[in-house]
Amino acid sequence: MNAGALFVPVAEELAGLEVELERVAEVDDPIFAELLRHILRGRGKRLRPSLAFLTTGLISGDRARSTSSRHYPWADAGAASPRLPMDSDAGTLPLAVALELLHTATLVHDDLLDNAFVRRGNPTLNAIASQGVTVLVGDYLFAGAADYANRCHNLAVMDVVVKAAMTICKGEIRQIFSAGDYKQSMEQYYRQIDAKTAALFAAASECPGILAGQGAEVVARLREYGHSLGVAFQIVDDILDFTGDEKVLGKPVGSDLRQGTVTLPTLYALQSVAVSDRLLSLLEGDGDREANVSQAVQLVRQSPAIEDSYATAADFVRAAKESISIFPDSPYRRSLLALADYALRRER
Amino acid sequence: MNAGALFVPVAEELAGLEVELERVAEVDDPIFAELLRHILRGRGKRLRPSLAFLTTGLISGDRARSTSSRHYPWADAGAASPRLPMDSDAGTLPLAVALELLHTATLVHDDLLDNAFVRRGNPTLNAIASQGVTVLVGDYLFAGAADYANRCHNLAVMDVVVKAAMTICKGEIRQIFSAGDYKQSMEQYYRQIDAKTAALFAAASECPGILAGQGAEVVARLREYGHSLGVAFQIVDDILDFTGDEKVLGKPVGSDLRQGTVTLPTLYALQSVAVSDRLLSLLEGDGDREANVSQAVQLVRQSPAIEDSYATAADFVRAAKESISIFPDSPYRRSLLALADYALRRER
Repeated sequence: MNAGALFVPVAEELAGLEVELERVAEVDDPIFAELLRHILRGRGKRLRPSLAFLTTGLISGDRARSTSSRHYPWADAGAASPRLPMDSDAGTLPLAVALELLHTATLVHDDLLDNAFVRRGNPTLNAIASQGVTVLVGDYLFAGAADYANRCHNLAVMDVVVKAAMTICKGEIRQIFSAGDYKQSMEQYYRQIDAKTAALFAAASECPGILAGQGAEVVARLREYGHSLGVAFQIVDDILDFTGDEKVLGKPVGSDLRQGTVTLPTLYALQSVAVSDRLLSLLEGDGDREANVSQAVQLVRQSPAIEDSYATAADFVRAAKESISIFPDSPYRRSLLALADYALRRER
Repeated sequence: MNAGALFVPVAEELAGLEVELERVAEVDDPIFAELLRHILRGRGKRLRPSLAFLTTGLISGDRARSTSSRHYPWADAGAASPRLPMDSDAGTLPLAVALELLHTATLVHDDLLDNAFVRRGNPTLNAIASQGVTVLVGDYLFAGAADYANRCHNLAVMDVVVKAAMTICKGEIRQIFSAGDYKQSMEQYYRQIDAKTAALFAAASECPGILAGQGAEVVARLREYGHSLGVAFQIVDDILDFTGDEKVLGKPVGSDLRQGTVTLPTLYALQSVAVSDRLLSLLEGDGDREANVSQAVQLVRQSPAIEDSYATAADFVRAAKESISIFPDSPYRRSLLALADYALRRER
């Protein structure tokens, strides 16, 4: 099962998202429009918009189904999904667009800075446009994200989205400054993956609660769901950088260590007496850097660090599921629970 | 007289702005904080924040002075400026910070893309930090601008600021794609300088009106003031790129032509039968590019295009002054009128 199957309950909303993203690309200048279309057209998993739509459904519920049906619509991908209209739908589309634009803006600048020329099998923007154009299109997407966030007409939502953007930028700057610092703490790692993934996931699940006028406790639980899910996703991402299949991943394993980025598997391995000294000497040692990284990847792979990292990710998955336990059963809740499980199982 | 003297009526507010900008730089990471301080510390003219503060004063007025005094406080720079508290002050500081952060973000990315290493006598961010850090610090400033704009707690203000940001980015992308296009129209030029300068000036003078709850006609006049002032500023900027003193400007003359950027003096010169053919052959011709640009600059300087451009700028200055004629006399209005005149007279 792929992530897409989980999103069947919000298939209609996701189709609406694609229409709106096409609209974002409708700018005067034809070359600029073409570049926007290139980067916005449906290649991503649309995880953050899906999260926002599912959370909106979670809140409004789906009473007709939740009492009588044991049919799990996300289990048969592609099936038509007749459903009740959501109550608090109006504000979720602009929110979803804002989240996707913000995410895309960060990817556009990331790919430029990483000199990455392919993403999800397609050329990155910096592969087909100059540095200048890439920076400016990213900037335009940031501004576009703020524009759509403001269309939710809710100052608190804008605040959550803007603060997430600031957290992301701060985290990326910190990551550059802390590259190759193998002495960094667990706390630093968690702060880092909050910035990288969890802050925007948390925004995606918190904002629908704010828009639906939910109380502080409910909003906090929704935020907790997105945050825990995001942390689990990122930990598994970091594990796959050691254990993944390069063909499935679409990038070479060991990318993080090669860039000096310290993630949970490395931190756990460095805590293990059996592995620590050898690993550190490979990472900090002179000699053939590429050979050292390869050996370091092998060392971490064969250590209990991978299993320990999965156990930690599983804790966050449990926390995510627990945080939405107060909501009644619905296709949306089932999708969100399955999405949490999917975070652990996924291969890319 | 320099621009600073015009801002004496809002000296206190501008001091508050500096304090708040220092606060923006207070981030955890010490290197990041140092970089933010480096780019935010008072080197710019703070034109956009000043415009926002003066407009706030213009609206609330200063009755005590406007009836009795012929003393022009902006004429003696540095003099203490006792003044009445402004009515609608509360929201202007976050707005002013937002405008300055947005402006700074665009400069940070511009300098990177232009490979400029000095601005106002100081090293640019890209001169002291890597490409990656420069892009990300610019991104952080964009997000920070949205954060402060949202602290105005006004959706319409956020919309104006965000739309200005989008206009700026779009304009810069268009400028790259239209470089070297000497056949472009006047309309394209005006769209370009709207993006470069006038949109943010217009936001700076419009938003205080929105925050003060003024009616649509008043808000439109305030916007018109900032827009016309911005156009005049940019036209004079474009003239000074031909006629300025390199030592005062802090950059070589002819920068625009060297980058293929077509501005009003060039457009007017190209309309003149006496100059057009020779100029076009220099601009589009082969041979020593630098020598061609130098000769083209001389040609435009000696043509009536400079005088014509000043006449056009003067029209916009008049329009700016006319648009605030409905407000009662006050130190703020006097400053705004003098600022419009200053736009024409300035040497850098």
